[in-house]
Amino acid sequence: MYDLNFREENRISGEEDSSVSELVCKTLFAWEEAVSPHLAAERESGGVVGDSKVIETLGKCLRDGLESEIERGKREILCIVETAGGVASPGPSGSLQCDLPFRLPGILVGDGRLGGISGTISAYESLKLRGYDVVAVVFEDHGLVNEVPLMSYLRNRVPVLVLPPLPQDSSNDLMEWFDESHNVFDSLKNIMLLAYSERIQRLCDMPKRAGELFWWPFTQHKLVPEEAVTVIDSRCGENFSVYQDQKNKFIGQQFDACASWWTQGPDATLQIELARDMGYTAARFGHVMFPENVYEPALECAELLLQGVGKGWASRAYFSDNGSTAIEIALKMAFRKFSFDHDVLVDFLGKDTTEKCVELKVLALKGSYHGDTLGAMEAQAPSPYTGFLQQPWYSGRGLFLDPPTVFMYNSKWILSLPELLYSEIVEHKDIMVRHCSTVVHAAGGMHMVDPLFQRILVKECQNHKIPVIFDEVFTGFWRLGVETTADLLGCVPDIACYGKLLTGGVIPLAATLATNAVFDSFVGDSKLKALLHGHSYSAHALGCAAAAKSIKWFKDPQTNHNIIPERRILREFCIAKVDINHCTPIYVVKNLVHAATLVDDKLWDLDLIQQISSHRTVQRVVALGTLCAIELQAAGCNAGYGSLYAASLLKKLREDGVYMRPLGNVIYLMCGPCSSPEVCSQLLLKLYQRLEEFDKVEEKLKSC
Amino acid sequence: MYDLNFREENRISGEEDSSVSELVCKTLFAWEEAVSPHLAAERESGGVVGDSKVIETLGKCLRDGLESEIERGKREILCIVETAGGVASPGPSGSLQCDLPFRLPGILVGDGRLGGISGTISAYESLKLRGYDVVAVVFEDHGLVNEVPLMSYLRNRVPVLVLPPLPQDSSNDLMEWFDESHNVFDSLKNIMLLAYSERIQRLCDMPKRAGELFWWPFTQHKLVPEEAVTVIDSRCGENFSVYQDQKNKFIGQQFDACASWWTQGPDATLQIELARDMGYTAARFGHVMFPENVYEPALECAELLLQGVGKGWASRAYFSDNGSTAIEIALKMAFRKFSFDHDVLVDFLGKDTTEKCVELKVLALKGSYHGDTLGAMEAQAPSPYTGFLQQPWYSGRGLFLDPPTVFMYNSKWILSLPELLYSEIVEHKDIMVRHCSTVVHAAGGMHMVDPLFQRILVKECQNHKIPVIFDEVFTGFWRLGVETTADLLGCVPDIACYGKLLTGGVIPLAATLATNAVFDSFVGDSKLKALLHGHSYSAHALGCAAAAKSIKWFKDPQTNHNIIPERRILREFCIAKVDINHCTPIYVVKNLVHAATLVDDKLWDLDLIQQISSHRTVQRVVALGTLCAIELQAAGCNAGYGSLYAASLLKKLREDGVYMRPLGNVIYLMCGPCSSPEVCSQLLLKLYQRLEEFDKVEEKLKSC
Repeated sequence: MYDLNFREENRISGEEDSSVSELVCKTLFAWEEAVSPHLAAERESGGVVGDSKVIETLGKCLRDGLESEIERGKREILCIVETAGGVASPGPSGSLQCDLPFRLPGILVGDGRLGGISGTISAYESLKLRGYDVVAVVFEDHGLVNEVPLMSYLRNRVPVLVLPPLPQDSSNDLMEWFDESHNVFDSLKNIMLLAYSERIQRLCDMPKRAGELFWWPFTQHKLVPEEAVTVIDSRCGENFSVYQDQKNKFIGQQFDACASWWTQGPDATLQIELARDMGYTAARFGHVMFPENVYEPALECAELLLQGVGKGWASRAYFSDNGSTAIEIALKMAFRKFSFDHDVLVDFLGKDTTEKCVELKVLALKGSYHGDTLGAMEAQAPSPYTGFLQQPWYSGRGLFLDPPTVFMYNSKWILSLPELLYSEIVEHKDIMVRHCSTVVHAAGGMHMVDPLFQRILVKECQNHKIPVIFDEVFTGFWRLGVETTADLLGCVPDIACYGKLLTGGVIPLAATLATNAVFDSFVGDSKLKALLHGHSYSAHALGCAAAAKSIKWFKDPQTNHNIIPERRILREFCIAKVDINHCTPIYVVKNLVHAATLVDDKLWDLDLIQQISSHRTVQRVVALGTLCAIELQAAGCNAGYGSLYAASLLKKLREDGVYMRPLGNVIYLMCGPCSSPEVCSQLLLKLYQRLEEFDKVEEKLKSC
Repeated sequence: MYDLNFREENRISGEEDSSVSELVCKTLFAWEEAVSPHLAAERESGGVVGDSKVIETLGKCLRDGLESEIERGKREILCIVETAGGVASPGPSGSLQCDLPFRLPGILVGDGRLGGISGTISAYESLKLRGYDVVAVVFEDHGLVNEVPLMSYLRNRVPVLVLPPLPQDSSNDLMEWFDESHNVFDSLKNIMLLAYSERIQRLCDMPKRAGELFWWPFTQHKLVPEEAVTVIDSRCGENFSVYQDQKNKFIGQQFDACASWWTQGPDATLQIELARDMGYTAARFGHVMFPENVYEPALECAELLLQGVGKGWASRAYFSDNGSTAIEIALKMAFRKFSFDHDVLVDFLGKDTTEKCVELKVLALKGSYHGDTLGAMEAQAPSPYTGFLQQPWYSGRGLFLDPPTVFMYNSKWILSLPELLYSEIVEHKDIMVRHCSTVVHAAGGMHMVDPLFQRILVKECQNHKIPVIFDEVFTGFWRLGVETTADLLGCVPDIACYGKLLTGGVIPLAATLATNAVFDSFVGDSKLKALLHGHSYSAHALGCAAAAKSIKWFKDPQTNHNIIPERRILREFCIAKVDINHCTPIYVVKNLVHAATLVDDKLWDLDLIQQISSHRTVQRVVALGTLCAIELQAAGCNAGYGSLYAASLLKKLREDGVYMRPLGNVIYLMCGPCSSPEVCSQLLLKLYQRLEEFDKVEEKLKSC
């Protein structure tokens, strides 16, 4: 009976010095009736026992045990956690035991009876499907040599041990049987110890090996000493399990607050669902050729995209591997559409197609970023990423506008208008129409571009038959509180790009959606008129299956409790009122009307956001959907992309279990579409507390 | 007892007209002893029964049954295949039953006893991990309400049915129990029929839906009518399961002879191993942030790359998503290295880094192709892919050489030298050193560039401190019979790119390897000096885990029987003697020495290759490693990329179960590194036969 029938026994081994070898057994949960624990708990305890209770009780037991043993002078302690029932038996809450996030290395107790080969293999696979490592399989011999097919299945990579048959008569406490089994248990213990020491040794060595072999992207290796390397043992939902303390060999949890470069969305449940889907899809399809073919995951994914983010405007889905390639494809689509609409290509097939007809440029926003490949880079304004040092071939083939932005400062939302905004557009209108084929949209990044400005720009371009691309690689799929920012802007594009959260954050896949009009500009009698762009793994089955699952998961109120289905927004979504002091009157009136329809609900706790925005270390805050970005007050070399200003602050936050990454002097918290507001508030609180500390240190530095 | 104890019984139902409802039971395999079938088969039949025997017997039984029933006027026949034992019990060969490639929709008979929840869930997961669809779960009631947790686990997407308890006394042939169970069995039958009809309906609808929603890459949609769309139900190793016949609802096998755009390598066994690894890795890691972090799959993958394809020269692994991005990264590395070595960048950090220092170009080979993104395209010579129609921003930033190529014609290997080869290099040497930073290497594609020429070019560049990039995206990992073409060329690059077969063909991942000297040109005190290029899913865990498994699998003689380990080549690898008639003497002598060391073993059956190369429809053949490419004799609009000349030939081959794709008038067969030479020979034979037919049709057309 739960918690009441808590038994504990100590048994001292045959050896004389009890400090050398002692066995301590604790039973954490037990019930009277031989039924599944969730039934027993319900019947006997008057209610289920929650997973958090089980995890907490086990954690406390392990910690207390370790501490008391260390106090008693023990140096080596071997803890074994035994579960009862099968690996996928419900625990006392009804959750499957294998779904509890322990990820301790396991010994699988198999089955030597008839049918036991199948049962043991399937149990092993259920553990693997939850990221568990099995270091050995052991079972009772029933004379059926089940070990032979098991070892063959395991390709001898996991040892299989066989215990002698249990005697029918257990009157002498099985002492004879234990004698007979001694060697097997000894081997098991040695296997466990060896697996443990090898695992820890590998974890210890990993930072050094990583520093020697990896070439990390966007990383100055000279600034990453061995001790700064994070060793990630696993992830569970939004959290990393990090091997933190080289001395105490401690694995701790860190909230992945950079969403691993903005890709992450799954909670722990979705992650396990995706794992099963990845296994199934790899087994059923692996990867198969896409062009001129159709297979279920690709079709389902395309249907969901066109009924979801593309609803009301898009007719075609073009798949690629990442945001950057999705943008390159979008640009090619836009070039063609513009060229056809503006008679740039007349009777092109008769001409030498290598001949330049006209120079095409994009109209894009300063500060936007659309990927790292050359084509995507050409569509962004000059920046540290585009200089000769990084990309000697960059020339910047666009007209780049300085957009109005929205942010919170000192508890108020501010609309910041660049001086020359309108005159700039008017002045260049002629060029825009003749030379620019696209508008690249950037609601994301860490600046929030005013939605009304974007809408006006989009409509203006479309009036002049300039195709508009929405770069939703970052912003799509609820990142900003809506499934697509088209909902936020009140207008639709001709072409849009998706990536990152598209697959829930498990695997790379990108999609470029387009209208039928765009598609039609590639239709003709010759293959040479088709869009000749495609990557080897176009529409790969695993990516499409992950996307199909995630798209449905995020918008289903049964699986995502943050969804307000009737309004198609996340409950943490919010745009607040805009301060009119910084704007020209007409502009603001329009904007207020628009924004007012969105003022709403709780997001990241509004009080805390306001407090942070009023903090003396903070220059601006943008909190929208799953994102909360904070620009720190900084000047000189402390500002900008190369700045290391935030490093000390973020180091402290990692000690608090919050894994953040800086963009120069901008820091951000990012949760998943399913993350609970409670977790978000805890993150904000920790951040606020560390800002206070950071402020004091900075003050001290200044006064020195 | 196998095949001897073959029992058959017919039982007519209670209804009067036996043609309406009749039950026919056949037992295909049975043994006396109640042990695992592989043991029983060994003991009772004097040897195991092979998987092919089981598949063949079952197939024959189903076909015969269907035919005889159709003859007897039946219109609707429901076939059920029942397996005995657990889903992962060994079959009569020792292979697990679930590993036999049937992929029929299944009903899982679960377990209503204590422990049955776990056993049923695990069995379900073992089926999913092999790509099986389960349409219902059914079990005998033992009063433990196992259906509740099972339905919760299945999220109500799969119905769970409960049969009444079997009576202890079965003396009356269970007739009462059958009466009681009638409703459940009726429901099961309806579920099966519904699942079948829904599945077939979906398969029927798929071509139309695909034509409406997809935008296939490299595809002129106007040339792909609905009936030309291939519906792929699944893949197993090298074969597609294709829903072929809309009338007879037939699913047939096609060998994926284009290796799904050159990505595929797994045999059926590796595919299932990868499926389990994908499930495990998604559960353990999902995707986690790469920069400044380390986690096991990324580290293991980097180690295997640097000890394998990078052995002896590479020190660092840079991960990205596809070949095109790997090339863009390689170019950025090469630009920096060249700039540093040639003092192009002096005190760069003090200057405005957007300022152009010098125009950098690449030295590359005509006809080579390195990907579709703009940067990668700039490194290739003008082609149909680069014209204004496709890529208005392309300018072709390189010096493009016309290389000597090797091919077979009329049963002889020919070395074809372009006239101006040497003078061209000498003439441009000065420009090359000053303006070109890289040599892009292309051993692959469908032309085989002479290896000796490549080696000379590589050495010449390296002598002038021009960094050399090997584009091994296509050629790497045994595609051409060696793990890396560095082995074939006898020289090493400074930078090399890998993709496609890197993951065994299951998931996109790419890697750019580099020497320490290249890496060092990015090391400094500022982040701005680092290589600022990275995709969201850099070094994603699933890709790295798939790569680690595949790299080891392909080179292990235990898992890949084609490997000759002591020589590190595939047994089908071959370069034959070169005909000296077409070359200058010195050049050829050297080449013969080199080639002679490789003349070897059997590849694609040499006799057949020679026959094909002598065929009047064939212009040239290149057979090397896993590739056999054939250029058809063609002129005018029948030649070149846009040609549809091969379409009728390939259509016929699909009827033969060979899925090939054309590159204009070039067609090719591609197998996996583990494919058996027997399979390759069958493919060649089918191709030869269809060439004969094609020839006759072409002749007829000409004479008309």
